Amino acid sequence: MQDAATIIRTAHLMADAARNAILPWFRNDALSADNKRPADFDPVTQADRDAERAMRAVLAAHRPDDAILGEEYGATPGTSGLTWILDPIDGTRAFLCGAASWGVLIGLSDGRDVIYGLIDQPYTRERFEGGLGQAQLTWSGGERALRVRGGLELAQATLMTTFPEVGTAAEGAAFRRVADRVRLTRYGLDCYAYALLALGQVDLVIEAGLQSYDIAGPMAVVQAAGGIVTDWQGGPAAQGGQVIAAASAPLHRAALDLLND
Amino acid sequence: MQDAATIIRTAHLMADAARNAILPWFRNDALSADNKRPADFDPVTQADRDAERAMRAVLAAHRPDDAILGEEYGATPGTSGLTWILDPIDGTRAFLCGAASWGVLIGLSDGRDVIYGLIDQPYTRERFEGGLGQAQLTWSGGERALRVRGGLELAQATLMTTFPEVGTAAEGAAFRRVADRVRLTRYGLDCYAYALLALGQVDLVIEAGLQSYDIAGPMAVVQAAGGIVTDWQGGPAAQGGQVIAAASAPLHRAALDLLND
Repeated sequence: MQDAATIIRTAHLMADAARNAILPWFRNDALSADNKRPADFDPVTQADRDAERAMRAVLAAHRPDDAILGEEYGATPGTSGLTWILDPIDGTRAFLCGAASWGVLIGLSDGRDVIYGLIDQPYTRERFEGGLGQAQLTWSGGERALRVRGGLELAQATLMTTFPEVGTAAEGAAFRRVADRVRLTRYGLDCYAYALLALGQVDLVIEAGLQSYDIAGPMAVVQAAGGIVTDWQGGPAAQGGQVIAAASAPLHRAALDLLND
Repeated sequence: MQDAATIIRTAHLMADAARNAILPWFRNDALSADNKRPADFDPVTQADRDAERAMRAVLAAHRPDDAILGEEYGATPGTSGLTWILDPIDGTRAFLCGAASWGVLIGLSDGRDVIYGLIDQPYTRERFEGGLGQAQLTWSGGERALRVRGGLELAQATLMTTFPEVGTAAEGAAFRRVADRVRLTRYGLDCYAYALLALGQVDLVIEAGLQSYDIAGPMAVVQAAGGIVTDWQGGPAAQGGQVIAAASAPLHRAALDLLND
């Protein structure tokens, strides 16, 4: 893609703007949460809204012809054929707990594939980036190539998800069929689990009930690192729903078999 | 205590030494885990052993008369009446996943109470410290006083634990009686959950099956921040086992009632 450099530069400006908008609110006693879905505590905060507006302002200045789909402010049409998919804070619950597993998610779709994505953790200053020739983590300690680890069997694998319930009762039961077969299952990391998979630290992430903005950025990062991201039937995952990310084809196949057992 | 300044200085030297011993191993592909309890994946790594040896070397040089109780190298007698209680890496499973919720735990007991404690997170460079007149977090962004938040009822509270199973089936059921009544339950943070409670970000931490070295440091930090740490019967928690940490007396009482329902 001829304007890859412009796209990447814009994405970093967006992530910088989101960092600056969010960090003053992190662990700030003045922050309060509105509940988007009272039955279930689905919080949104001023930090979420400030960060999405900050990213939209960068796009308006640098790439006004691209479309936008954002968690907080919805869809804005464009003419370039490219759509930025934004989750200003993935993991708002973790954010409200003061835990640094939340992230700013940016994905770019060409209408068919997510061609570039970024997971930014502002507090630890870690930025995981993939697509358009990129696959790296940059942080205060330097830069490191992202590369999934291969060669592990299911019985040696580490599995992550955010909530122990995973989703519906059937989705939870399917998840547990995989969890019962791996060496280690860990909970609670939101988008950071995909970053750790891309970094070669864990082997499987299995979630349900995702929205497109939850997975667009992470999918591009994991794929650029050599991983596989699909839905639980092995089909496209960009629309969200039931998602599995795997470090290798054999692990992906073994987990799909158990999910659909 | 007349030598409080020496104790605090020594604790910081120990935490610095542990950081230096551990960080080269974090997210290092050369790290492998030995399993202390094959039925259950209870990992220990070279990083755990290196860090405890580094802390013991600081004590040998600066406070050779104090006793030591360490997770990896056991008990070393002393003559001062003080015992350092060390967990070089609390959360080795998180460490092996590349997640930064593990910590170096240091507690100091006078034989009756844990009078000082420290939770250090080397990767984020956060050090939570409590006792002997201290109650603060120091990190690259500066210093912040540790203070639990009060005034929340159980229905507004955030609860944390590390594993969804918590412990035995009965312990898991007791935990879920509390989880069913709070606003938000989060998993997977190991010792970092106590740090977040001391920082006023969460309200309850409930765990089971702890060892004394898992809780000594966190207990001192939480208590110095104004929180309450007991066992599930409201008695002393320094020996580990079933532990509850609460931001306020009403929350503590409400959670104990449910745990023992």
